[in-house]
Amino acid sequence: MFIEPGELLKNINNPDDLKKLPKSELTKISQELRQYIIDCVSVYGGHFGASLGVVELTVALHYVYNTPDDQLIWDVGHQAYGHKILTGRKDLFHSNRTYKGLSGFPKRKESEYDAFGVGHSSTSISAALGMAVASEYKNEKDRQHIAVIGDGALTGGMAFEAMNHAGVTNSNMLIILNDNCMAIDPNVGALKDYLTDITTSKTYNKFRDDIWNTLGKISKFGVNAQEIASKVEASTKSFFLKQSNLFESLNLRYFGPIDGHDVDHLATVLEDLKDIPGPKILHVLTTKGKGFALAEKDQTKWHAPGTFDKVTGEIHKTVPEKPEPPKYQHVFGKTIIELAKKNDKIMGITPAMPSGSSLNLMMEEMPDRAFDVGIAEQHAVTFSAGLATQGMVPFCNIYSTFMQRAYDQVIHDVCLQNLHVVFCLDRAGFAGADGATHHGAYDIAYMRSIPNIVVSAPMNEEELRNMMYTAQLPQKGAFCIRYPRGKGVMPEWQTPMQEIEIGKGRKVCDGEEIAVLTIGHIGNYVTDVRKELSQHDINPAHFDMRFAKPIDEEMLHEVFSKFDKIITVEDGCLMGGFGSAVVEFMADNGYSAKIKRLGIPDRVVEHGSQLELQRECGFDQEGIKNTILNMLEKKIEKKPFAQLV
Amino acid sequence: MFIEPGELLKNINNPDDLKKLPKSELTKISQELRQYIIDCVSVYGGHFGASLGVVELTVALHYVYNTPDDQLIWDVGHQAYGHKILTGRKDLFHSNRTYKGLSGFPKRKESEYDAFGVGHSSTSISAALGMAVASEYKNEKDRQHIAVIGDGALTGGMAFEAMNHAGVTNSNMLIILNDNCMAIDPNVGALKDYLTDITTSKTYNKFRDDIWNTLGKISKFGVNAQEIASKVEASTKSFFLKQSNLFESLNLRYFGPIDGHDVDHLATVLEDLKDIPGPKILHVLTTKGKGFALAEKDQTKWHAPGTFDKVTGEIHKTVPEKPEPPKYQHVFGKTIIELAKKNDKIMGITPAMPSGSSLNLMMEEMPDRAFDVGIAEQHAVTFSAGLATQGMVPFCNIYSTFMQRAYDQVIHDVCLQNLHVVFCLDRAGFAGADGATHHGAYDIAYMRSIPNIVVSAPMNEEELRNMMYTAQLPQKGAFCIRYPRGKGVMPEWQTPMQEIEIGKGRKVCDGEEIAVLTIGHIGNYVTDVRKELSQHDINPAHFDMRFAKPIDEEMLHEVFSKFDKIITVEDGCLMGGFGSAVVEFMADNGYSAKIKRLGIPDRVVEHGSQLELQRECGFDQEGIKNTILNMLEKKIEKKPFAQLV
Repeated sequence: MFIEPGELLKNINNPDDLKKLPKSELTKISQELRQYIIDCVSVYGGHFGASLGVVELTVALHYVYNTPDDQLIWDVGHQAYGHKILTGRKDLFHSNRTYKGLSGFPKRKESEYDAFGVGHSSTSISAALGMAVASEYKNEKDRQHIAVIGDGALTGGMAFEAMNHAGVTNSNMLIILNDNCMAIDPNVGALKDYLTDITTSKTYNKFRDDIWNTLGKISKFGVNAQEIASKVEASTKSFFLKQSNLFESLNLRYFGPIDGHDVDHLATVLEDLKDIPGPKILHVLTTKGKGFALAEKDQTKWHAPGTFDKVTGEIHKTVPEKPEPPKYQHVFGKTIIELAKKNDKIMGITPAMPSGSSLNLMMEEMPDRAFDVGIAEQHAVTFSAGLATQGMVPFCNIYSTFMQRAYDQVIHDVCLQNLHVVFCLDRAGFAGADGATHHGAYDIAYMRSIPNIVVSAPMNEEELRNMMYTAQLPQKGAFCIRYPRGKGVMPEWQTPMQEIEIGKGRKVCDGEEIAVLTIGHIGNYVTDVRKELSQHDINPAHFDMRFAKPIDEEMLHEVFSKFDKIITVEDGCLMGGFGSAVVEFMADNGYSAKIKRLGIPDRVVEHGSQLELQRECGFDQEGIKNTILNMLEKKIEKKPFAQLV
Repeated sequence: MFIEPGELLKNINNPDDLKKLPKSELTKISQELRQYIIDCVSVYGGHFGASLGVVELTVALHYVYNTPDDQLIWDVGHQAYGHKILTGRKDLFHSNRTYKGLSGFPKRKESEYDAFGVGHSSTSISAALGMAVASEYKNEKDRQHIAVIGDGALTGGMAFEAMNHAGVTNSNMLIILNDNCMAIDPNVGALKDYLTDITTSKTYNKFRDDIWNTLGKISKFGVNAQEIASKVEASTKSFFLKQSNLFESLNLRYFGPIDGHDVDHLATVLEDLKDIPGPKILHVLTTKGKGFALAEKDQTKWHAPGTFDKVTGEIHKTVPEKPEPPKYQHVFGKTIIELAKKNDKIMGITPAMPSGSSLNLMMEEMPDRAFDVGIAEQHAVTFSAGLATQGMVPFCNIYSTFMQRAYDQVIHDVCLQNLHVVFCLDRAGFAGADGATHHGAYDIAYMRSIPNIVVSAPMNEEELRNMMYTAQLPQKGAFCIRYPRGKGVMPEWQTPMQEIEIGKGRKVCDGEEIAVLTIGHIGNYVTDVRKELSQHDINPAHFDMRFAKPIDEEMLHEVFSKFDKIITVEDGCLMGGFGSAVVEFMADNGYSAKIKRLGIPDRVVEHGSQLELQRECGFDQEGIKNTILNMLEKKIEKKPFAQLV
C-alpha cells in the first residue's frame, strides 16, 4: 500500500531539501511529517508515541544543523522515525522493522545520518562525548555533536557518568533533554519530580525568561552570542542558576525549559546554541503521542500499538478461532501474584518495564511489594540483593538483553554472596522486530559461567509456573528463568503448580537412532518435527533439559550411553551456550558422539519475525528436521511446516 | 609478630564494649585505632590511606548506631579495617588478605557486622535501600540503614540510579558521603568540582550553620528533632537549599558538610540524624591517609603501599639479585606510548585506574590523548565507541573484574557496530589478595560469546607488545587482550614489535603422547613442567594458543589429528571458557580425544596469593604436572616446584 506524503514532504529526500524551505514552512512540514508517521504506523505498525513527540524537534534539528557532518544521536532510538523519513529513507519506510527491511532504530550501517547505533537506553551522551572529544583533538572547531535523550533514559546511571565527564571537557556537545515524563511506562524516581519542579518553578522561569530574552536579542541584532551568554552567566546565572540546577552542578550550561512543539522557537534556540561552545543542555518539553489524541491520552498503550485505524483509533486485533495460548509475559504477571499471595516474602522488581513484563499487575494489586525502579538495571539487581539479605524473595524481572547491563551486579552482589534472588529474563532468544540490539542471545552463556546460580528455561507455560514456584522455595543462591517474547503453547495454562527438582530434565519422549536435547520454548519445534518424522518411521528421542545449569548429568549419561548421534537446540548463542555445556559434559566424562549444536551463530543477526530469524539460523522446525535427516543420512518428501509462532 | 593495641582498644572486642566508653574517650579511642591500623598495615601490608581517613567516622558510627541490627554498608570496602577491628576481628587482623585469613573487604560470611559484601564500587546505596525497603515492609520502624560512600564511588552511575529511587521512598536510610577528593587516584569529573564548590560556598555554609545550630539545640533540650528539622526545611531549607543542591534535587535531605575527623561532633550529628526519618545524606569531609603525614601527602602511593617502616615511612622493597621481569602493567603503560607516538589515532581511556593500569604514564606525556573518566566503566566503553566512530583507535584499559560492569556496552555499543576498540583487560585471572570480588575469572567466557571481537591473552611481555601492536593496525571490530596482575617472565622485554596473525597460535614445542594447550601467562607453568618431565623422558607438546577467539582451527586440527590426550589450561573459569572453546571445536569437527580442562572451577574462590589459589584449583605447576602424569598413567619421583610468581 502506497502512503502518500504531503505536498512539501514528498519533495524532501534529505536534510538539504529541508533546508531549502523558508522558516515559515517549518510548521507545515512538521504537520506533514506527523501525518506521514501516523499514516505509516497505522498500516505497518511499529513504535508510535515517541516519534510523534519529537516531530518538531526532528525538523528543527535537521533544519539548523549540518547533518550528517554534525552528529546527531538519538538515545534509545525508537523516536527516530521522523529522522529516518527526512534522511533519505521515506520510500523504504514501509519496510520498517520487517525482515531485510529498515531497522526500527538508528543504525550506522543503514545511513550516514545515523551517527551511532542505538536500541538500549542512556548511551547517547557517552557516544556524543567520544565524538566531540575526537573532533576537538582533530581541531574540527565548528562540528556539532548532539545527543537527544529522554527523561526516562536519563535515569540510567551511565548518562550520569557521561555528564560527570562532559562537565570537565571543552567538548562541543549539546545534550537535548526530551522531557515527556515517560519511559515506555510513566517515568519514575526523584529526578522526574525534580524536572517537573524546575519546569513549574516561578523563580526559575523568571531567570529563564531573562536569559532567553537576552539570547533573543542576540539573534536579532547579530551580537556575539557567546559573549552575551558569558555575561549572563557571570551575573545572575552563576549566582543563582549554577547553584540551583542539577545540571549546572555538573558544569553543563543549562538552557530551558522550552516548548518542544513550537518548531520556530526551537529552530531559533538551536541556532543560538550553535554559537555557544562547551558542553550544554537544552531542556525541551514534549508530549509523547503529540497530535494523535488517543496516543496523548494513553501513552503506554500507544508506545507501540501495532496497526490501527487512524480515524477511529481502533487497534486492530485478530480474533482467534479457538482459545489461544497466553503470552509468557501474562503467565509471569499472573503467577507472581498467585505466589506472592501465599508467600509474603516475595517482592517484584522491574527496571522500567512494568507493562512489558506484566509486573504492572502486581504493582496494582500489591503496591508495597512491587517496584518500578526506573531505567536502572544495575540498581534493580543490587536493590534485589539488598532485599534478599533481609529474607525477602525478590523476583527481578529484566529483559534478557538488558540484563547485560547488570552482569557485574549479578556476579558481585548476588552470586558471590550466594543470595536468593530470582531473575526472570524476559524476551530471551530472538526478540523479533526490534532486532540485533534487543535479541536475548547471550544469557545462557554469560549466566552459566557464574557460580551459585541456576539457569533454567521452561518449554511451556506450565513449566514456567512450576519454575517460578520452585524458584521461590527456601534455598541458597540465584535462580534464573529465561523465556521468550510472545505466546506459549497451552491455552489451558493455569495448572496447579508443583516443584521441579532443580537440575532435572524431562524426557519428552523416547526414541531411536538420535536424541534431540532442547532447552526452553524452542523444544516445541521438536514436538512438531517428531510428528512429521514419525509418519516416516523416524523417531528421534526428545529431552527437554530445562536447566543449562546445573545440567542434568544423570540424563546426559543416559543420552550418551544410548545415542551416538545428538542434536542440541537453543534459542541462544552457540559460543558457550547450552550446547557448549553438553559438549563440556561429553568431554569431561569421556563420551564420544556425533553432536550437532543448533542455535544463534557467532554473528550479528538483524531483525525480522522470530521465526524468520530462527529459519535463517537453521533452527526453525525445517532446520531441525533437516539436521536430523542429515545426521541420519535419510531423506523424506519435502513438506513445509505451518508457522508455529 | 604480636601487635599491641592501645589501652582502651585492647578491651574492645565489639561495638558494645565501645558503647561503654564515655563520649569524652572517643578521641582517644580514635587515636588508638588509627595507631593500630598503622602498626598492622606497616607489618602485614594492605590498603592503608582509606581506612585512616575514616577512623573517626568508624568510631562514631559504631558508637551511635546499634550494629549489627542497624545495617552499615561500606562502599568498596577497603576503608573498613577500623570497622573490622572494632567488630570482633582484632585478634585475627594479622591474617588480613592472606590465604584462609580475613578478607580485605567486608564479607557477609565473615561477620554479621558486614551487612553486605563489597569490593566493587558504587553498590552501597542500592543495597542499603533494598534493606531499608524490606525493613519498612516488615514494619521495623527504628532500624537504621547506613551506606558510606566515597566521592569517587559516587561517580559510578549505579549510585545515581539508587539515589533516584531512594528519593521517592520513605526508607530509613542515611547516605554518608565520605568526601576526600580521591578514588585510588585523585577523583575526577564535574561532580568533584561541585562538591568542592558546595564545601567552600559561604552562603551555603551560613545555612548549614543555622541548621546545625538548630539541631544542636534539639539534642540539648530534648526537643523532637524531627519536628524541628521539618520546620527548618519548610522555611529556609526548602526555599534555598532544595533549589541549591544536587542531592536535594533528588529529594534526599542534605546535611553538612562537616569535619570527618571531629569524632565528638560526628557522634552528635549522627545521633541527631537517627531521629530524622526518610532518605538523607550527610556530607563528611575527610583526608585520606589522615594521621600519617606521608600518606596524607601522596595519597595514591599510600593507597596500598605494601609493608613499610612506620617511623621513617620507608616502603620496604626487596632488591632483586638479578634483573627482574617487569609487571605486565608497566609493559602496557610503556608500550601504548611507543605505539601512540607512531599512530596519532591511538587514545587511552581508564575508568579511575591510571596508576593501577599505568595509563598515568600516557596521561602525563600526552594529556590530550589519555583520559581518566572516573569510576564509570559503562561510560568508558561507550565513550571509546564514540571515539572509534571518528577513526580514533581507543585503548580502553579496564580490570577484567570491572569489565563486568560494561558488558552491555561492549556488546551493544562496540561489537554490534563492529567498531575498532581495543580492550586491555588488566588483572585477568586470579587477582590474589583482593579475593573473590576482584578475580578476573569470567572474561574469556563472557567475551567470546559476543560476535565481532578478538579474545586474546599473551604468554609473556613480548607477546603483549605484539598483541598491542597488532590490535592498533587498521581493522574492523573489537580486540580484547587479557593479562594478569604482576610480573611477566622477560627481564629484557623491550623487543621490536611485530604483527601477530589474528587467530594464530604458537607451537612452543613439539612433543609426544600428550598435548597441553594454554592461553596467556599461565603457559609459562607448562614450560617449567616440561623441564622437569623431560628429565624423565616425558615430553608433552605445548601450544600457546594466544587466541580464545578466533581459535586457531588449523592448529587444533593438527593437535587433534596427532594427539588423543589433551590438556587445556587457563587462568579463567572452566564453564564456557577457553577449554570449552576447544571442546566445542572437537565436537563440531567430529574428533574424539581424552580431554582434561584445567582452570577456575565453578565455585567462589577466595583470596590468597595467585599461586596459592592456582594450587588450590589444581592448575599450578604441580597440578599441571600431576594431570599430565595421571593422563599418561605414569609416576615420577616427587619434587616440588620453586615458586614462579
